[in-house]
Amino acid sequence: MTKNMLIAQSGGPSSAINASIAGAIERALASDKIGRVYGAVNGMQGFLDRHIIDISEQITSPDDIEMLIHTPAQALGSSRYKLPKDDPSIFDTILGILKEYEIGYFFYNGGNDSMDTVSRLSAYFREKGEDIVALGIPKTIDNDLVETDHTPGFGSAARYVATSVAELYLDTIVYPLPSIVIVEIMGRNAGWLTAASALARDTGVPAPHLIYLPEVPFDIDDFTGKAAKLIRSEGQIIAAVSEGIRNEAGQYLADTGAAADAFGHKTLGGVANVLESAVKAAMNEPKLKTRAIQFNTLQRAAAHCASAKDLEESYQCGYRAVEAALEGRTDVMVTIKRTGDEPYRAYYDLSPLAGIANKEKSVPLEWIDAENADVTEEFMRYARPLVRGEATERFVGGLPRFFRFDWSKNVKL
Amino acid sequence: MTKNMLIAQSGGPSSAINASIAGAIERALASDKIGRVYGAVNGMQGFLDRHIIDISEQITSPDDIEMLIHTPAQALGSSRYKLPKDDPSIFDTILGILKEYEIGYFFYNGGNDSMDTVSRLSAYFREKGEDIVALGIPKTIDNDLVETDHTPGFGSAARYVATSVAELYLDTIVYPLPSIVIVEIMGRNAGWLTAASALARDTGVPAPHLIYLPEVPFDIDDFTGKAAKLIRSEGQIIAAVSEGIRNEAGQYLADTGAAADAFGHKTLGGVANVLESAVKAAMNEPKLKTRAIQFNTLQRAAAHCASAKDLEESYQCGYRAVEAALEGRTDVMVTIKRTGDEPYRAYYDLSPLAGIANKEKSVPLEWIDAENADVTEEFMRYARPLVRGEATERFVGGLPRFFRFDWSKNVKL
Repeated sequence: MTKNMLIAQSGGPSSAINASIAGAIERALASDKIGRVYGAVNGMQGFLDRHIIDISEQITSPDDIEMLIHTPAQALGSSRYKLPKDDPSIFDTILGILKEYEIGYFFYNGGNDSMDTVSRLSAYFREKGEDIVALGIPKTIDNDLVETDHTPGFGSAARYVATSVAELYLDTIVYPLPSIVIVEIMGRNAGWLTAASALARDTGVPAPHLIYLPEVPFDIDDFTGKAAKLIRSEGQIIAAVSEGIRNEAGQYLADTGAAADAFGHKTLGGVANVLESAVKAAMNEPKLKTRAIQFNTLQRAAAHCASAKDLEESYQCGYRAVEAALEGRTDVMVTIKRTGDEPYRAYYDLSPLAGIANKEKSVPLEWIDAENADVTEEFMRYARPLVRGEATERFVGGLPRFFRFDWSKNVKL
Repeated sequence: MTKNMLIAQSGGPSSAINASIAGAIERALASDKIGRVYGAVNGMQGFLDRHIIDISEQITSPDDIEMLIHTPAQALGSSRYKLPKDDPSIFDTILGILKEYEIGYFFYNGGNDSMDTVSRLSAYFREKGEDIVALGIPKTIDNDLVETDHTPGFGSAARYVATSVAELYLDTIVYPLPSIVIVEIMGRNAGWLTAASALARDTGVPAPHLIYLPEVPFDIDDFTGKAAKLIRSEGQIIAAVSEGIRNEAGQYLADTGAAADAFGHKTLGGVANVLESAVKAAMNEPKLKTRAIQFNTLQRAAAHCASAKDLEESYQCGYRAVEAALEGRTDVMVTIKRTGDEPYRAYYDLSPLAGIANKEKSVPLEWIDAENADVTEEFMRYARPLVRGEATERFVGGLPRFFRFDWSKNVKL
């Protein structure tokens, strides 16, 4: 019997997340078991508001799919909505809407919060004996999902970070003055993306000179000591720091800046600004140039720097989620299992959501160097294959062309 | 008679400046009139310190040239040194060093300050009857040199700005909340690069919604009024502002932030932060999300986003400067003269430095819209050809490979 499918996106944007829905859509459109392909706009919040569009109507050519693959952020929008823990009636509401739209296939494309939603929905459908499958498609630049070797979105963000750090280094050495550039990189609890800055060295530069991850406590005096020594020996240095680094007491460095202001005001900006002030204070060097750079939302949205490998894997995760659903699988997420680094080899698998939801994968401590200020060659071998390949073939006149769904065209039943 | 050549770089970094020295080097190495090709490290300051390397020795293959073309910032370093106006003996010093190294061809690759240096040197050599030619090779992301249609470096920076603004827009619309992203773009006196953000619309997004250039006075109340209205109608908007915008009194907006702080402290950060606070204060909207983003040094160093057309023209400017020098020309800069927009057509010319040095070209007022908050289609037609083409063909394993001269190998005469 033909049933409709619904897909939605959640969590933070990424350059690669739309490749996953492109893969899911392409597989679904080719199946005679799936009727309409619907998309909820703004995740579960949009779904509950019946903000649902008909993707089968809006994707009209293979060219649309190609453009969608190369479009960053979330083509279906996102939401911060979490299923309430104490209101079981929410499941009845969701089931009601799914039935209204005759949906038998539900896909949620996001991080560990989203996987929790999918897992609970799947359990509820089974309990009620409903013939609806719910599957997860992984996505996060943070690379912190368990059971999968890495997550779609990470490779592209890593490529942006590594490339940009290398370019910033060349920029900073043009003047023969002592200087430090402190680059602040996303990843509140997991340092994967900050660690990826180490790949900058593959371009032929010595940067970054220091790398700090949230996996180990951060000692500000040790940092300023190391930075000062390196500035004296190298002239110009780059430090890559995770926004989530914490001191021994577990306090975010970004929050300790407040103490520096005699009037009790919090220091504007994040951890890079706090460290910039600390280096200035620690070094008695009037010529010292300091610069705090936040990659900000560009690190998750810079599709022009996407990794072709990442887009390919991201597409496959979406494609295979639909494939698995058609085979009757539910309560699973598509995972990537690596079998080799060089040459890189991996296969796709399905892992039960119970083992994934609400868990976080950190950078293994053995991949952080003994001084806690760098990563090891093991990490480099892990990360290198993920940033490979350019994805600019869809550019027209030097600029990308983006696909956008018309969010105003709500499905009328 | 064979004479040696010296080339140096000055001013701020750019993704395309090394393509110019690559062109100059390649032409020089092919000439039997030029002996050694020297490079001064860190501009005129390095030259005066005899920090001079032998480029003919360090460039060993066409592959080195190709890598150099794609390497951002300044492969020969830069300096902030300006020739003193009141010390004519500096010219004798310079001439002495040139003779010491048997240099007959002098090239300076930079902006309008650098062209002033070249012009004065050239006049001095002529006055002394010295057989040394001095030529300028244009470079600045600011695009503010006169006599040339545009400057090498501008197209690549423009491509980065337009692409990044489009990507940031897609990032900012994923949540259905009112929001404004204010992007601060380089260009203290000329708004060319900020204007280039308008090209983001060619990707299929409506951003930026507001564009402010330093060419016209900035009215903060008019800005907050327009921004509030747009946020209410569009939901999420992007404003692109030049770091150099000034109010009617000629005061930099970035400096007016101080007034906002009751304790008399200057607001940290630049103009984007000032405008962010202003919008917050003007709109009584607790859900409003604001974000101030500075493209910082990435806009001038992001070679991964360089325009192939820009690199090609940049290379040609260097190549033709050496060609002209070999024909005995001096006291000129290579210029680009446009003859058509679509298809884009341009030829290279030589313009006397006296008409270029210390002059600045602003965005024509007729290319700024009547409301002073956007640019016209004329500007778009001007800018579009300059951002064309990708320049990622030299990437290995997804990452660029950079060429670096060994600055420690000083020439021993």
